[in-house]
Amino acid sequence: MSEAPKFLRPVTAPGADVGHAVHFGPDRPLALDCGRSLSHFTIAYMTYGALNADKSNAVLICHALTGDQFVASDNPVTGKPGWWTIMVGPGKPIDTDRFFVICANVVGGCMGSTGPAENDPATGDPYGLSFPLVTVRDMVRAQAMLVEQLGIAKLLAVVGGSMGGMQALQWAASYPGRVRGVMPIACAARHSAQNIAFHEVGRQAIMADPDWQGGEYQLRGTTPSKGLAVARMAAHITYLSEAALQRKFGRTLQNREALSFKFAPDFQIESYLHHQGASFVDRFDANSYLYITRAMDYFDLAADHDGHLAAAFGANAPRFCIISFTSDWLFPTAESKSIAHALNAVAANVSFVEIKTDKGHDAFLLDEPEMFGTVRGFLNALAGA
Amino acid sequence: MSEAPKFLRPVTAPGADVGHAVHFGPDRPLALDCGRSLSHFTIAYMTYGALNADKSNAVLICHALTGDQFVASDNPVTGKPGWWTIMVGPGKPIDTDRFFVICANVVGGCMGSTGPAENDPATGDPYGLSFPLVTVRDMVRAQAMLVEQLGIAKLLAVVGGSMGGMQALQWAASYPGRVRGVMPIACAARHSAQNIAFHEVGRQAIMADPDWQGGEYQLRGTTPSKGLAVARMAAHITYLSEAALQRKFGRTLQNREALSFKFAPDFQIESYLHHQGASFVDRFDANSYLYITRAMDYFDLAADHDGHLAAAFGANAPRFCIISFTSDWLFPTAESKSIAHALNAVAANVSFVEIKTDKGHDAFLLDEPEMFGTVRGFLNALAGA
Repeated sequence: MSEAPKFLRPVTAPGADVGHAVHFGPDRPLALDCGRSLSHFTIAYMTYGALNADKSNAVLICHALTGDQFVASDNPVTGKPGWWTIMVGPGKPIDTDRFFVICANVVGGCMGSTGPAENDPATGDPYGLSFPLVTVRDMVRAQAMLVEQLGIAKLLAVVGGSMGGMQALQWAASYPGRVRGVMPIACAARHSAQNIAFHEVGRQAIMADPDWQGGEYQLRGTTPSKGLAVARMAAHITYLSEAALQRKFGRTLQNREALSFKFAPDFQIESYLHHQGASFVDRFDANSYLYITRAMDYFDLAADHDGHLAAAFGANAPRFCIISFTSDWLFPTAESKSIAHALNAVAANVSFVEIKTDKGHDAFLLDEPEMFGTVRGFLNALAGA
Repeated sequence: MSEAPKFLRPVTAPGADVGHAVHFGPDRPLALDCGRSLSHFTIAYMTYGALNADKSNAVLICHALTGDQFVASDNPVTGKPGWWTIMVGPGKPIDTDRFFVICANVVGGCMGSTGPAENDPATGDPYGLSFPLVTVRDMVRAQAMLVEQLGIAKLLAVVGGSMGGMQALQWAASYPGRVRGVMPIACAARHSAQNIAFHEVGRQAIMADPDWQGGEYQLRGTTPSKGLAVARMAAHITYLSEAALQRKFGRTLQNREALSFKFAPDFQIESYLHHQGASFVDRFDANSYLYITRAMDYFDLAADHDGHLAAAFGANAPRFCIISFTSDWLFPTAESKSIAHALNAVAANVSFVEIKTDKGHDAFLLDEPEMFGTVRGFLNALAGA
């Protein structure tokens, strides 16, 4: 660890390993889109592989809503493998034998980077809802400071799925001269009305839990587990597809021969959802969930440029490789196509791949050989260029 | 009112007008699929138009999950027009100048028919979770008793959308000799894994509300409004389509010029959802919501016939007219097609219409001229046959 992180962790045990962490003080405040700034903040991150001599092989991976920096190594909270070990590692599509991979926990998160669960240095108490709202652009601004701190003038690539893809897009818009290629996967340039709606349901479920305590649950020694579990269950459905749910679960009963005529879970899909909810609350902070969903809702790259998405990308835009999945109804292919069209309008170098799968949005985390080939090929092309 | 209903109403004021009601006593118990029976139960219903001399013009309309018997007249709880006045009335597609329309509140409901909010005659207290689980077949069994009580040997038609369509299908399976034609709209012969999942999220939201009190909230003087509102908000998203939400709301802000950087509703879609949640809890009982969603989850017409949907419909099947909507992702067209295929396998008289619309599942409640023409034509054909 570069510096000892100074924060109270509500999920992991105190002093738990969050990988590396860099702390920025009042000399380097993080200016936020909301107008406020953080004059003390920590970014927790992991790296894999080695930075080469001319510092030209760095790949930044951006995580999704509930992800973290443990992209390719065991997660210290869950004890489970990293969330993208299928993609990142020695010999994998993002090959850590060749590339120096960086993955940072987003600002607003709960895995070591400064977020609402951390103590506010001004009061000594957890921020809770006094933490400023952060945006995807703020997350990327903090990542840029981290990358600079690591002495890397230009990233080879920024890669991410879902909210990670939003960050990749934002990198291209905010720091086009500091990245050679970006790879937004299963994402959009703006969050849709339906996606905002699902997020708001999740937030309302959390806030409806009396143990949320107006966001001050840490001070009061409670945890809004029930509300957070409901939020996770609702969201989880949107990460899959109807076809995948039917294929995996259908109407199969859970450990029983016949319907129980009770409200306990009869169907496997119900038990599966319960498990998703229960395991999530053990590893995630409820206020972080509010903040990060809000950041996604606020994401609208065109709005930052008078409604013209093309204007977000200039003549010096990095190379783009965009991936979508046919059964992803959270971020349908049409969203990726509109990004490609905007990039075409500024004559950017862009390739777009739609992958046929029934696995829904979460396909980006799963075994999709065409995605692996595309990612590998794009990085090879960037490295060879 | 035929007989004074004997129950405690948690939503409407005591003695509120629930239309007509018929009470069945121990001499005519309702045998339920769960193995229990109700030896006292009430079915509240409305009628519109006049029964003709040979009693051949009766059309039974079955309501959806949160519907009720007020299909074509003002709802006494909300004061709003009936839920299908666009379809039912003088000169409308289901023309009350020609047809005698019956619409009954389902058993398990909360608008006058016996359900979990009613007092258990055995204890004098509200049933709560001691009310037996009911199925769509049970709902239809009670309707058949009502129709018999009204002296109608054979219905001209049974029409319904969503869960109402499930009931129409069940009528064809349970009482093929007692109905000339059935019209299932925007439904399926079995509830999908994804639909069960969304229902379970809603139930968990209700049960997570401490005011639910293990289902005994009436006795304890509380109302699980927050949980029920979350359940409704989540469900409401599934009734629409992404395209309709984008068209109606997009990312338009609610009464503000710029993002607030707070958690209060910034977007119109959020305010709209809040309104849907808040208005629902004023008119619906939380336990009824649990019971009726469970009835839909349990619906699987093929399972009642060793997995063969075709076997649910015999040689004497009524005529079918099935309607689906292109943008309905809750009950996609493929579900309706599989019903049509099963009916073809038994050489039943079936027509199937898929209507192009971006309005999603709720299209069946909205202004869809092709649906109106189809309904009118089918009833005319039945009446002329």
